Amino acid sequence: MLYVLKFGGSSVADAEKIRRVAGIVTEVYCEGHDVVAVVSAQGDTTDELIAKAEEINPRPSKRELDVLLSTGEQIAAALTAMALEKIGLPVVSLTGRQIGINTNSAYGAAEIKSISEERIKNELDRRRIVIIAGFQGVNKFDDITTLGRGGSDTTAVAVAAALHADKCLIYTDVEGIYTADPRKVQGARKLEEITYDEMLELASLGAQVLHNRSVEMAKRYGICIEVRSTCTGAPGTIVKEVVKPVEEMKISGIAKDGDVARIAVLGVPDEPGMAFKLFRALAKAKINVDIILQSYGKDGTNDISFTVAESDVKDAEEVMENCRELIGFDHLSVNTDVAKVSIVGAGMIRSSGIAAMMFEALYDAKINIHMISTSEIKISVLIDEERADTAVSAIHGKFFGN
Amino acid sequence: MLYVLKFGGSSVADAEKIRRVAGIVTEVYCEGHDVVAVVSAQGDTTDELIAKAEEINPRPSKRELDVLLSTGEQIAAALTAMALEKIGLPVVSLTGRQIGINTNSAYGAAEIKSISEERIKNELDRRRIVIIAGFQGVNKFDDITTLGRGGSDTTAVAVAAALHADKCLIYTDVEGIYTADPRKVQGARKLEEITYDEMLELASLGAQVLHNRSVEMAKRYGICIEVRSTCTGAPGTIVKEVVKPVEEMKISGIAKDGDVARIAVLGVPDEPGMAFKLFRALAKAKINVDIILQSYGKDGTNDISFTVAESDVKDAEEVMENCRELIGFDHLSVNTDVAKVSIVGAGMIRSSGIAAMMFEALYDAKINIHMISTSEIKISVLIDEERADTAVSAIHGKFFGN
Repeated sequence: MLYVLKFGGSSVADAEKIRRVAGIVTEVYCEGHDVVAVVSAQGDTTDELIAKAEEINPRPSKRELDVLLSTGEQIAAALTAMALEKIGLPVVSLTGRQIGINTNSAYGAAEIKSISEERIKNELDRRRIVIIAGFQGVNKFDDITTLGRGGSDTTAVAVAAALHADKCLIYTDVEGIYTADPRKVQGARKLEEITYDEMLELASLGAQVLHNRSVEMAKRYGICIEVRSTCTGAPGTIVKEVVKPVEEMKISGIAKDGDVARIAVLGVPDEPGMAFKLFRALAKAKINVDIILQSYGKDGTNDISFTVAESDVKDAEEVMENCRELIGFDHLSVNTDVAKVSIVGAGMIRSSGIAAMMFEALYDAKINIHMISTSEIKISVLIDEERADTAVSAIHGKFFGN
Repeated sequence: MLYVLKFGGSSVADAEKIRRVAGIVTEVYCEGHDVVAVVSAQGDTTDELIAKAEEINPRPSKRELDVLLSTGEQIAAALTAMALEKIGLPVVSLTGRQIGINTNSAYGAAEIKSISEERIKNELDRRRIVIIAGFQGVNKFDDITTLGRGGSDTTAVAVAAALHADKCLIYTDVEGIYTADPRKVQGARKLEEITYDEMLELASLGAQVLHNRSVEMAKRYGICIEVRSTCTGAPGTIVKEVVKPVEEMKISGIAKDGDVARIAVLGVPDEPGMAFKLFRALAKAKINVDIILQSYGKDGTNDISFTVAESDVKDAEEVMENCRELIGFDHLSVNTDVAKVSIVGAGMIRSSGIAAMMFEALYDAKINIHMISTSEIKISVLIDEERADTAVSAIHGKFFGN
């Protein structure tokens, strides 16, 4: 079997942890499998490099920043290879360029266009363990690029796809995907399996275990991902297309996202095209809008509310003010003390009463709902941020028991 | 004009120093010249990376060590480019691989086989300043190599040769090449010019301003080198093929090398082939022998003395003991408390009495000479290490006045 393993920055943070990673890799290799391991930069390396850059130039070009930052993963890859050499295993470390990760030229957030599997295959044919510096590639100008957030996960899935690997194992500091955040919700259960779509909803809802880019790529190429703990190495959660139904599990997980703000545009004239003009302006400013709600306001006007990421609030307010005249609304109301709580489950579409169960849990906990949004596999509600943890626990108790 | 500048690790050690380097580069660029700058890794970066490696594996493969160490120069190159971006100049940093520095596969001490000047020329044609990560290349397997000691100097000279640069400016923490170590010899003078051959003798004699590899390459391709201070930027010392004769200067410089040991093999039978057997054994063990002296010993035997680097003493003793039976010598005597003091000058061959002047200076200072060695452009003597600084001052006084 061919396994692609991925270890994040905290898993290779120091010599001791790198030795642990080498132990995991050794175990898989010695079972007779071919092993490719993708590593991120050690712990704080990236932050240290950014600090060095800022001392010299607070606004360096993204091209030079990529030249700088890509060294972090290269260092981690070499050190991990050295740890395996110490054990006495045949190993070789390779950079993104050496395995032909070709990207577009969006420095700092490049997208992978192709991978040439030749070099890796040659090394594997010689029964070498291949350690790959994640997060990086090279563009058509032969310049170094980095992949941005979730870059090393994306490298791992892309390599797994190029090599037709049997599985992509993402090692992290949690033991898998849980029905809710296990640090906050008593009785949160680890899922054995979850579908790509459920994972995508959970990732975008703030579960933060896997980045959406890597899950999307895994879905596209049918790569089976398993999320495991670097500490225990125990079987974690498998992410794949279809999962075997678990009778009593009506939903797969509950997620909380506190990085959200609600903007209410009050007193919008009841004329055609108002919503279009408003959201076109936001789109032009590259502001992502999540939940949208339109309701009747005073005197025959409409109120349009929507949510954005907290970091986009300032920009969104500016955009709204700039089109106040065009739209002719009355006033704006902004609330950042809100959170989005969502339940996700591929089985939702086949079960009735899921939404009712969620709302009942919130009602029992006396939590007021500001907005509701639904898709085929999720239901999200916007509530006061200070009640969010209580809401997650209440909903979890309703569906899974505490 | 096209200038290749080179800045060592201490010149780019921190943000402040990198800004100074950017200032020097800016000055040359704004005079209308094309500028390529080669940088070493910042101050202690290389040592820090080696320490990281040793914590994980005290004996990593040289291949992985090169993957690791090459990041140091890449970081320095990116940061230097960012400092120039801050000033507002067009700049691009490039790794050894990006400028096509092809080397053999001697990891850790690779030799440059070729450079493809295309990328650099394209960047220069666009009036960009090119910052190059020194010390590194790539072998025919597409793997990263490093050039070993003096590697960044060698990169700079090789780039200057490939581009037919008008001059290669080596910026360092001294103001040029001196007639003797200015920290130790009162009245030591800065040389305006020095020949490649003189520089080669001085470098191998422990002057340590330029590494021999870079001087040899400069001589081969006729690259004019100038050694300058990063601090003052004042005209330094020019290294070239032929220098204009300075009437009163009979020699160019005096150097001291304390890293030397004398091994005396006493009581060697007076038969043919003894010296051959002895030095063949040393050569097989890759031990470099410098000065050799043979003299009559007791009872019709010979005494053979030679000098080696102090780091080779243990190995040399072992080699000697192993061939004690083959050669049949009486006993060994090892002395590490010796130093080699040398005078160098291309004009020596045309002047008579230079050796006599040197010996007279040593006699006046009551310094005993153990061994003497001469070449066309140098005279070396082996003396007690504790008298070496006195010897250098005495000789300097004789030739240059104090």
